[in-house]
Amino acid sequence: MQRILNNPDNIVDEMLQGFLKAHSDLVEGGENPRVVKVKNIPEGKVGVITGGGSGHKPAFIGYVGKNLCDAAAVGEICSSPTAVAFLDAAKEADQGKGVACLYGNYSGDNMNVKMAVKMAKKVGITVKTVVANDDVASAPKDQREKRRGVAGEVLMWKVGGAKAAQGGDLDEVIAAAQKAIDHTRSVGIGLTPCTLPAVGHPNFEIKDGTMEVGIGHHGEPGIEVVPIETADKMAKRMTDIVLPDYPFEAGDEVVVLVSGLGATPVMELYVLYNEIDKILKEKGIITYRAYVGNYFTSLEMSGATLTIMKLDDELKELIDMPAYSMGLKQE
Amino acid sequence: MQRILNNPDNIVDEMLQGFLKAHSDLVEGGENPRVVKVKNIPEGKVGVITGGGSGHKPAFIGYVGKNLCDAAAVGEICSSPTAVAFLDAAKEADQGKGVACLYGNYSGDNMNVKMAVKMAKKVGITVKTVVANDDVASAPKDQREKRRGVAGEVLMWKVGGAKAAQGGDLDEVIAAAQKAIDHTRSVGIGLTPCTLPAVGHPNFEIKDGTMEVGIGHHGEPGIEVVPIETADKMAKRMTDIVLPDYPFEAGDEVVVLVSGLGATPVMELYVLYNEIDKILKEKGIITYRAYVGNYFTSLEMSGATLTIMKLDDELKELIDMPAYSMGLKQE
Repeated sequence: MQRILNNPDNIVDEMLQGFLKAHSDLVEGGENPRVVKVKNIPEGKVGVITGGGSGHKPAFIGYVGKNLCDAAAVGEICSSPTAVAFLDAAKEADQGKGVACLYGNYSGDNMNVKMAVKMAKKVGITVKTVVANDDVASAPKDQREKRRGVAGEVLMWKVGGAKAAQGGDLDEVIAAAQKAIDHTRSVGIGLTPCTLPAVGHPNFEIKDGTMEVGIGHHGEPGIEVVPIETADKMAKRMTDIVLPDYPFEAGDEVVVLVSGLGATPVMELYVLYNEIDKILKEKGIITYRAYVGNYFTSLEMSGATLTIMKLDDELKELIDMPAYSMGLKQE
Repeated sequence: MQRILNNPDNIVDEMLQGFLKAHSDLVEGGENPRVVKVKNIPEGKVGVITGGGSGHKPAFIGYVGKNLCDAAAVGEICSSPTAVAFLDAAKEADQGKGVACLYGNYSGDNMNVKMAVKMAKKVGITVKTVVANDDVASAPKDQREKRRGVAGEVLMWKVGGAKAAQGGDLDEVIAAAQKAIDHTRSVGIGLTPCTLPAVGHPNFEIKDGTMEVGIGHHGEPGIEVVPIETADKMAKRMTDIVLPDYPFEAGDEVVVLVSGLGATPVMELYVLYNEIDKILKEKGIITYRAYVGNYFTSLEMSGATLTIMKLDDELKELIDMPAYSMGLKQE
């Protein structure tokens, strides 16, 4: 493996130590070493937390920051945090106003968050949840509850974090974050697989000359494997999947988020975005704000995800609010 | 090639179009389509420009922003911008106070900048230059003028941009940027090569199980090729090269910048940073600020660079100044 590693069993701890040292002006470790929290959480607000497996940087800990998440629970590589880590993240974030736990739809996370919610109740902390399910490729439209959460989670955190920072109560924060994810659809295309450090070889295969449409962040199979095509055709394929699902239509104002999966040069994300923007313009869809970069990755996987969120006045205001974390800085 | 591309000959234009659309709140194209400039450059300040080949994102155009560079000239992949592009960047940035051109030490860039300076003089624009040469591995210490510029350029832009924003005159901006790079040393370790899109196969080789110490951003050979080692040993090897060269010593306050080369998971950069931080602490060197992420890349190359800058009071103030661009956002 051509990687920067010590003992793969220690990678999450060492990464966390490095992360906390590098960003000590902004974040600190929780009492639980698998929790990262904002320094000086503003008083009196609803807590906002998230959590998930490691290897998706900036997700999840990179979205702990000002007007974003107050704390995050950290799992092993591509593996859910424990229920106790989610509970401890809630404890760090709670100020008696309750905690919104905004996370992605994976069986391990669902199980651990559910347990954490019960445990929190016993210690007097109200935790309500929003489960991101923006990945169109992972289940039919009439089974949205089965869909995975992918890069749309970033917009969910942005919106939920901003609502809490505005002074929204728990139900308002939950409603805003739920609206954000309900208004959001994503799809990914994978070009090369990734290797879990402790395994040492790719845990799935993408043959050279092919691409996997609808791939998940852990290599979960998508809609189909097809011969690799030009960036313009990829853009058309991605918009053809995402746009009809919501559906996004002429006159809609949207946020567009194009994220690399880790190893794709950022230059290529702009090539892809260039064509996505053309397609949206042709359809009369108005891009209100765009994010292009590595916002939600999968170790050294190559490829990209496209996420589109339809805006209303409330979402616009929340998306526009300044934010500051390792993964998302916005004036 | 498992890449997101159309015709490789058009990649720079398509990337630029995508970049300008995605960041239209902050930047715009110059009259020359190979120039990117800040929208609404503050009046009356010294201009700060840079430029270089494409494929190193966020460098170079990702550092066009507030309190950073005012404009950048854009070259083909891994190839210098033209003299006219540098000249046109200077024209966009000039407000009669002169222009500081802060770029990296490569023969093509040197030649084109030199020509641009002469052409600028003819049209009444004073352009003075600082040539970054922070890469320790590229020449012996007594031949610093032969050394390449690598990720230390980011700190040079940060400092030069801040000095200009403070109202420094051209000589003061040049002096601050020169001081920044004189106080800065870098080294890179390459783990996998990169492929120029128009070529279609790697333009140099790094054998599996080995790493290239001192590699340049275009695969320029470094000090030695050795068997791949643990992150901790890489950290020791990098600090053993960088620290004695300046030299950085006990009591020094420094900025540390760890940049990925493109395809290395950011998680691994934190693992590397964790050990670098330990080594600096053991030596009594004080980390005043750290940057960890993909700040200066080489397409989909794997590996990392370490950059260290020694601070004095002036550099501290300039490094601390807020900045806002696609590649560097700092409160």
